Amino acid sequence: MFAIARHDAGKTAAADDAVAIEEPLELRVGGRSIAVVMRTPGHDRELAAGFLVTEGLLRARDDVLDLVRCGREPGGEPNENVLDVLLAPGAVFDAARLTRHVFTSSSCGICSKATIAAVRGQFAPLAATMRPRRAVLAALPERLRAEQAGFAATGGLHASALFEADGTLVAVREDVGRHNALDKLVGRAFFAGELPLRDKILLVSGRVSFELMQKALAAGIPAVAAISAPTSAAVEFARESGQVLAGFLRGARMNVYAGTLAE
Amino acid sequence: MFAIARHDAGKTAAADDAVAIEEPLELRVGGRSIAVVMRTPGHDRELAAGFLVTEGLLRARDDVLDLVRCGREPGGEPNENVLDVLLAPGAVFDAARLTRHVFTSSSCGICSKATIAAVRGQFAPLAATMRPRRAVLAALPERLRAEQAGFAATGGLHASALFEADGTLVAVREDVGRHNALDKLVGRAFFAGELPLRDKILLVSGRVSFELMQKALAAGIPAVAAISAPTSAAVEFARESGQVLAGFLRGARMNVYAGTLAE
Repeated sequence: MFAIARHDAGKTAAADDAVAIEEPLELRVGGRSIAVVMRTPGHDRELAAGFLVTEGLLRARDDVLDLVRCGREPGGEPNENVLDVLLAPGAVFDAARLTRHVFTSSSCGICSKATIAAVRGQFAPLAATMRPRRAVLAALPERLRAEQAGFAATGGLHASALFEADGTLVAVREDVGRHNALDKLVGRAFFAGELPLRDKILLVSGRVSFELMQKALAAGIPAVAAISAPTSAAVEFARESGQVLAGFLRGARMNVYAGTLAE
Repeated sequence: MFAIARHDAGKTAAADDAVAIEEPLELRVGGRSIAVVMRTPGHDRELAAGFLVTEGLLRARDDVLDLVRCGREPGGEPNENVLDVLLAPGAVFDAARLTRHVFTSSSCGICSKATIAAVRGQFAPLAATMRPRRAVLAALPERLRAEQAGFAATGGLHASALFEADGTLVAVREDVGRHNALDKLVGRAFFAGELPLRDKILLVSGRVSFELMQKALAAGIPAVAAISAPTSAAVEFARESGQVLAGFLRGARMNVYAGTLAE
């Protein structure tokens, strides 16, 4: 809760306001810092595992021994915002595959395709396509809203929800970052041994970017639906990957940008 | 335009749909790849300069000789999605300051403060605070909407707008990424020799994250207003930095999370 000033029609009142929590999580693998992610605390182990899976750095459940809170404040208390992934002996981990933020020494004039291709082409297209039922998709937003407690309180959280093909809810995760919400869902499936997520439908509360479609593909998700708009790169990626992409889900209305629906 | 299927009340129609364009921009400095940013093409030079300024890598206009499209497709045609920043002789550029995505070898057990602090504490608080007028803030959203052509067409673009203290519009930029929209605004000011942006007000079309407040501070912006919610880290950062932060601007209503307004 924050003490704020609420202005309305020329009047000012002091008030307490619930704000979506955003804190840094430092992610380490074997003691080595990989990234600092601004996230909403909660489901941090799922976030860490899901981030590594959707970035292509982690595949098998057996590669992870444990995830531990390893940071210490100067006074010696544990720091909740540092999480270390302990790999199993023999697990392969190549941090250089963290391609989203490129630190290379490629020289100017050389074709850039290699670098941009590295961002795009990390995961193979789906082997099998899916045809979600239109009525199932139309019913998902209402089910998400019923579960989205954090957004109702703060107006500041994105949500990702995973559904069975018949519309049964599997899990919902919320976060200030839309990618984090999806990573948490994927991390949950990672620990449950459910990857790849064949025949599942992902619903996201906002817009759909390229990065979100890529993370969905990394988890094997064949169908993505969104309350709001997709980007051009999201549409192109979905078409190339064999994913279904539906946007602007509003009651009985929706736009299908990639793939086809069943009646 | 994309050919899509539009579903409505049980009927399906083929349609052409305008989608917000999202493409990768590979950013190089002196030929070295620094980052690949997913962005909406347009104002790329502003985006590149603004990104470097708000990441703390670039300060003085004189440090930049030029920004050039340097990529080549395999066939030899220019690749519009690679931009190289040519630094002036003697300009200091330390890519290691790109702290947001940390690649270090700090070992587990060591206090993490150094790393998370590096994300937080890059820019000094403002020397002078600002007290924007309430009536000025209340009028900004309508002015932004009038300028936001891309969002009207696609529903998929974020906007950042810069205003004088009296509410006069300085510039608007749109992008699929909210950080990019702000970076483009800051890059515009960089080339115009207007940094730091003292006495200016920033309006953003969506939510306000920590990262957005940090980028605003990097540009010297003393007041940030948003149509939607801020995060906890955004509020804390604004208070520590001496910035004004107002959210949920809806007609005569708004919440002030940091700083105070004038009548």
